[in-house]
Amino acid sequence: MTADSTAALPSLDFDPTDPVALTQALVRCPSVTPAEGGALSLLAAVLSAEGYGVHRPVFSEPGMPDIENFYARIGSEAPVFVIAGHTDVVPVGDEAAWSRAPFGAEIQDGVLYGRGACDMKGGLAAMVAAAIRYRRENPDAPGSIAFLVTGDEEGPAVNGTVKLLEWAHGRGERFDHCLLGEPTNPAAMSDMIKIGRRGSLTGELTVSGIQGHVGYPHLADNPIRGMVRLLAALDATPLDQGTQHFDPSNLEVTTLDVGNPATNIIPAQAKAVFNIRFNDTWTPETLANEIEHRLREAAGNTVRFAVTFRPTNSVAFLTEPGPFVAMVADAVEAETGKRPALSTTGGTSDARFIKSYCPVVEYGVVGKTMHQIDECVAVSDLVALERITHRLLATYFATQHKA
Amino acid sequence: MTADSTAALPSLDFDPTDPVALTQALVRCPSVTPAEGGALSLLAAVLSAEGYGVHRPVFSEPGMPDIENFYARIGSEAPVFVIAGHTDVVPVGDEAAWSRAPFGAEIQDGVLYGRGACDMKGGLAAMVAAAIRYRRENPDAPGSIAFLVTGDEEGPAVNGTVKLLEWAHGRGERFDHCLLGEPTNPAAMSDMIKIGRRGSLTGELTVSGIQGHVGYPHLADNPIRGMVRLLAALDATPLDQGTQHFDPSNLEVTTLDVGNPATNIIPAQAKAVFNIRFNDTWTPETLANEIEHRLREAAGNTVRFAVTFRPTNSVAFLTEPGPFVAMVADAVEAETGKRPALSTTGGTSDARFIKSYCPVVEYGVVGKTMHQIDECVAVSDLVALERITHRLLATYFATQHKA
Ligand SMILES: [Zn+2]
Ligand SMILES: [Zn+2]
Repeated sequence: MTADSTAALPSLDFDPTDPVALTQALVRCPSVTPAEGGALSLLAAVLSAEGYGVHRPVFSEPGMPDIENFYARIGSEAPVFVIAGHTDVVPVGDEAAWSRAPFGAEIQDGVLYGRGACDMKGGLAAMVAAAIRYRRENPDAPGSIAFLVTGDEEGPAVNGTVKLLEWAHGRGERFDHCLLGEPTNPAAMSDMIKIGRRGSLTGELTVSGIQGHVGYPHLADNPIRGMVRLLAALDATPLDQGTQHFDPSNLEVTTLDVGNPATNIIPAQAKAVFNIRFNDTWTPETLANEIEHRLREAAGNTVRFAVTFRPTNSVAFLTEPGPFVAMVADAVEAETGKRPALSTTGGTSDARFIKSYCPVVEYGVVGKTMHQIDECVAVSDLVALERITHRLLATYFATQHKA
Repeated sequence: MTADSTAALPSLDFDPTDPVALTQALVRCPSVTPAEGGALSLLAAVLSAEGYGVHRPVFSEPGMPDIENFYARIGSEAPVFVIAGHTDVVPVGDEAAWSRAPFGAEIQDGVLYGRGACDMKGGLAAMVAAAIRYRRENPDAPGSIAFLVTGDEEGPAVNGTVKLLEWAHGRGERFDHCLLGEPTNPAAMSDMIKIGRRGSLTGELTVSGIQGHVGYPHLADNPIRGMVRLLAALDATPLDQGTQHFDPSNLEVTTLDVGNPATNIIPAQAKAVFNIRFNDTWTPETLANEIEHRLREAAGNTVRFAVTFRPTNSVAFLTEPGPFVAMVADAVEAETGKRPALSTTGGTSDARFIKSYCPVVEYGVVGKTMHQIDECVAVSDLVALERITHRLLATYFATQHKA
């Protein structure tokens, strides 16, 4: 199931404590999931040179591409501060629409452009740079720093962080706290720390009718009419009002397809797929039950429907505000002059897996352009994130090792 | 644009006054639109032998298959009684699902099976048989009988009855009354004459939103939500209450498609197609205006939509009940013992084109199985239709030629 990658390591022509140079080097690796693209080899070269023990387990699953993952640690004692992330990126999309080469890492007017610049090679690079500078300045620092990096976050996430955590746990690795470097800030570096994530539940709704000719509607039963009725009912009442740390749960119909080319035929079936981002009011099970109940109520005796839910490993989770969350917020505030919001908004992330091993908080660069054409990151944000991470590590090890 | 077909005519091995044998011979011609399949050659052979002048104009249109059509007339004087129909049939569909060969015309327990058996080779055969018997019995009958048969009724209907009518009109042919042999009866031969048809208007509705990630719904605008709202509004209020001879107009959404495979993406656009069967309350123009108005009302300032209507030649029409309609109903009642209903229900037919040239009434066999697997017609219904048509011709020429 696992085997370490044996790829040769590249030589480095830049200072790895420079977050901008390191981001550029990572962006130039075309690591579109599932390709490693040289990104993990680059990290391996950088961190081995600093004395980290580096492992690159490859995980496999029948019918899926093998995925390289990455684990590096310096220090042998607790506490273990884990910095987590991913080097894989989403596809470039319409390359002609980019104003710069997507893997060129070109800098113009203080902005670094490229696929992965903000999600999340920039964040990861700034944290690597900070960790190296911290350990260079404090060679006898207590505790350990570990990097947990996957090449399968943007993909199916099957051969990624889940297996990497199990693999590390199996080797006796124990983690105390984790900082995941996803781009959490909407617009400025002082905006937002994520302390939780909503869960995600996907359902498929099929409404069955009776096919027939539009000229004889009384002999047919148009499933689109029933579908509209069910979807209107699902949309009519909020799932909840939100909780202390979470927005209200939200349902979006992501597709609705009939595929009937004949304008004189009433179709037999309509299918919709919906996705719910849910807060800690629900588990996937209680939520699925509620949706089924609402659909039954709306359908009455007249709409024939079936609903199924895709298996999910995505529950809502929360790292309760406390000393660790406060320490991250303090570091951000000290460097930016403004205290960040503690948020649970946005999509899912690998934090949903990490939270089973240790408290996890997410903080990174500004994510405005993630997954988009001309994805980019401000050079000044990379510098700020390096400083914030450095400050966090210094505070963490100064306080935690005494505990 | 037109050229007569020069296909050789088949020789006949049955009596063309036998409606069952003639139906079998026609069903055995695989005349799925646009293929002629030998069906028009068969009619040509049958009617030439009886002294009809036969024409087989072929109509063309760029980008469409050429279509053979058929016109035959006996007699040179008014009144001209036209019998109209089509020999083309819809595709067989899943041939394995048929219990008999779709072009086998097998008879079992008094039922003749095959594609086109009821729509409408059976009806056409019974009328041809009746017309032949009538003229054989009345060689000096006054007036004329004409057959107007197309091979493009089930297809786009562009190179069919419309052009055939223009062609005949251009040759100086004038028609007094028309019987179109579509299968008008829901269950029994005494059920229903069609004296009109609703019009058909097809529209395409596009709702545009803003694509985004399901985790950030406030940054997106789900067009499916808007689409559900617009469709629910269209469904909420009837278009009209029906008129003296017509059912209420009816709108059916025939397809609704988004085609978004990503369950974490809110799509940018949703498209629906709808078809309205409308009565004489509306013209296509007034109806399109009403739909646009209702959509604008429902959309308010929040749903961005566009609606377009496909060009249509399908207006609602009515042959007002009067002496001719009564004559057809009398013939049905005399042979079946029950007076048929005068209806305007069902799909469109080529009567919408014929009505511009002369009053047209539709009557044929039982249409229950039309377009279906195991399409069939009762042998006794073919015999009844032959007798009804014969009675109608006898009455028509006995009364009309004096007028
Ligand atoms: Zn990411
Ligand atoms: Zn037909």
